[in-house]
Amino acid sequence: MNIFGSKNNGDFMVTPWTVEGEVDYNKLVEKFGTSIIDDRLMERFVSVAGEDHHLLRRRIFFSHRDLDRILDDYESGKGFFLYTGRGPSGPMHIGHIIPFYFTRWLQDRFKVNVYIQLTDDEKFLEESRGLNLEDTVRWSNENALDIIASGFDPDRTFIFQDTEYIKNMYPIALRVARKVNFSWVRAVFGFTYETNIGLIFYPALQIVPSLFEKKRCLIPAAIDQDPYWRVQRDIAESLGYYKAAQIHSKFLPPLTGPVGKMSASKPESAIYLHDDPKTVRKKIWQAYSGGQPTVELHRKLGGNPEVDVAFQWLYFFFEPDDSKLKKLEEDYRAGKLLSGEMKNILIEKVAEFLEEHQERRKEAKELLHLFKYDGELAREMWKKIYK
Amino acid sequence: MNIFGSKNNGDFMVTPWTVEGEVDYNKLVEKFGTSIIDDRLMERFVSVAGEDHHLLRRRIFFSHRDLDRILDDYESGKGFFLYTGRGPSGPMHIGHIIPFYFTRWLQDRFKVNVYIQLTDDEKFLEESRGLNLEDTVRWSNENALDIIASGFDPDRTFIFQDTEYIKNMYPIALRVARKVNFSWVRAVFGFTYETNIGLIFYPALQIVPSLFEKKRCLIPAAIDQDPYWRVQRDIAESLGYYKAAQIHSKFLPPLTGPVGKMSASKPESAIYLHDDPKTVRKKIWQAYSGGQPTVELHRKLGGNPEVDVAFQWLYFFFEPDDSKLKKLEEDYRAGKLLSGEMKNILIEKVAEFLEEHQERRKEAKELLHLFKYDGELAREMWKKIYK
Repeated sequence: MNIFGSKNNGDFMVTPWTVEGEVDYNKLVEKFGTSIIDDRLMERFVSVAGEDHHLLRRRIFFSHRDLDRILDDYESGKGFFLYTGRGPSGPMHIGHIIPFYFTRWLQDRFKVNVYIQLTDDEKFLEESRGLNLEDTVRWSNENALDIIASGFDPDRTFIFQDTEYIKNMYPIALRVARKVNFSWVRAVFGFTYETNIGLIFYPALQIVPSLFEKKRCLIPAAIDQDPYWRVQRDIAESLGYYKAAQIHSKFLPPLTGPVGKMSASKPESAIYLHDDPKTVRKKIWQAYSGGQPTVELHRKLGGNPEVDVAFQWLYFFFEPDDSKLKKLEEDYRAGKLLSGEMKNILIEKVAEFLEEHQERRKEAKELLHLFKYDGELAREMWKKIYK
Repeated sequence: MNIFGSKNNGDFMVTPWTVEGEVDYNKLVEKFGTSIIDDRLMERFVSVAGEDHHLLRRRIFFSHRDLDRILDDYESGKGFFLYTGRGPSGPMHIGHIIPFYFTRWLQDRFKVNVYIQLTDDEKFLEESRGLNLEDTVRWSNENALDIIASGFDPDRTFIFQDTEYIKNMYPIALRVARKVNFSWVRAVFGFTYETNIGLIFYPALQIVPSLFEKKRCLIPAAIDQDPYWRVQRDIAESLGYYKAAQIHSKFLPPLTGPVGKMSASKPESAIYLHDDPKTVRKKIWQAYSGGQPTVELHRKLGGNPEVDVAFQWLYFFFEPDDSKLKKLEEDYRAGKLLSGEMKNILIEKVAEFLEEHQERRKEAKELLHLFKYDGELAREMWKKIYK
């Protein structure tokens, strides 16, 4: 099963069951130059955090750069901060929001600042999306509500969109940009002679928030975002800052099957955060299954949880209880649990999650101004010009 | 005499005496795709302006794009606006300030808004200058005082530096940037794989002020700035704006000889606006002369005003009276006027000009806030976000 869909690693076939020490992950990590989160680092992380998280335990976040140094800095009292972001090109789906729930958990455990960049400029500059700037500004506000609904601390979290916060970032963006030439962004991002000059400059702006504090920055993000941080790591110290640390996640598989990534161009592949229970039921019901063609055959031969999207989603996020998950897996393999039953379990979990999320999203409308302008961190940030 | 020093036209040999209909200018204008300001357009311009100016009359401003349309728009009541700028990389010299005095004259005559961009970002991004951002910000403020000393109307003039005004310009800069790819800036500006990504983006920001009003924009600038406006003219209408009109000047020849442009790397080649009378005297006294090696030979053979820098400066700017200038030329050619005498005439003119300029520059310190923040136009501009 290929749970990766990015252009960088399409040739890997890896399953979530074979994370530790398995050859595919070693290859992937070798190709990217990142490191596997090994058992020892995991245990240390969990011990310092004071709590486990199934996204860690199951190695959904499986790879890292300098996570050990983040823990060193935390333990020595130096501290660190978190940075993540969102390209506001449309409504968010469950695959988009999981990293934010995880980032919120990190903030809870370590009581650190979180900076969340909404790249309205980038999504406008990506011509193929056909969005105008009004669209990406509007999606910035819509997406911010979903992000806030993940439960961030309004006094320790700054949500900003590039076109609004540009003045504060521009001087340091220039310092970053002066260190990066076309040859480099061409190699890292695949830019060509046809790439527009806004998009060519943009990586400088995505690097800036990693320099918001003179502390180490931890970036939780899907592994396909790694190239940005490689450029950051090559120039940060020469600017007097720290190399960004990262913790990389896998992709939640799309409903359409265990290959690739959920895509806005295929709405049936994803569950959106605004989907109602009826839509959730319909989409999951149509999801790719690891079951047999008939009940009789399923009872006899058993299902395959490794390609069953409903089971995968429970594994990735929706069933945090390992023993319950193990039982689902075993019953499914044994043919005791039918595909429809597996789907019903997921439907209930997702519907409950969305109901709660949508409730918090309504409350988020009242909180938006705190995250963007009036919270403790936001107020500090609007006073700063980064030079 | 080659009065042009830019990379675009080093192969041209043109003299200020042979402007009209002469083959060299035709070639130059043909190469750039601009138009000569012919007698008819000149006469119309002077008539609409209600006053003549020796920089026009002598064709120091000799070439244009759409100047006729500017006059149409002015006469029809639609109006136009002026845009110029300065790269704040160091102190300004006389060659830098002449276009500002001319722009001020245009503002006086037509009562139009003037936008003056100080490109602190660009001068930082040009790595070879070795300036940090603090330097270019400081030079922005210094240069603004000299610009103000040229006599602009504080309620009709907005002076802004990119790092301060970026938020107001960024959305429309993105719209410009999305229309310009690497291939294009490579062809126009000679950018390479080694060019940093900030400099690659920068042309978008230089184009933005030409879109500040939904009127035609007239840009008075040395002809080597033309490439920027060619890009502007290719995209402006698709963004719902007008193609920028231009009026192009020649370069004031350096003191070191009639070839090339004054250069900050050769301080003896230029007279700086802060130079004291003693320095002015010394520099002009050492300037390249069109005279003969001895007084006797000069009396006998006469001097050559076409290569005599002192005469050239009087012609370009410092002797507005045509009949006085003609007499100087004739006396010099006839050997009646010695090189030292010509220089003394210029020294007196320049010293007087600088004394008055420096006096106004002192007063400019009190006025700076009007041009940048509090004048009528500035207040309007800080309220606008260009989308």
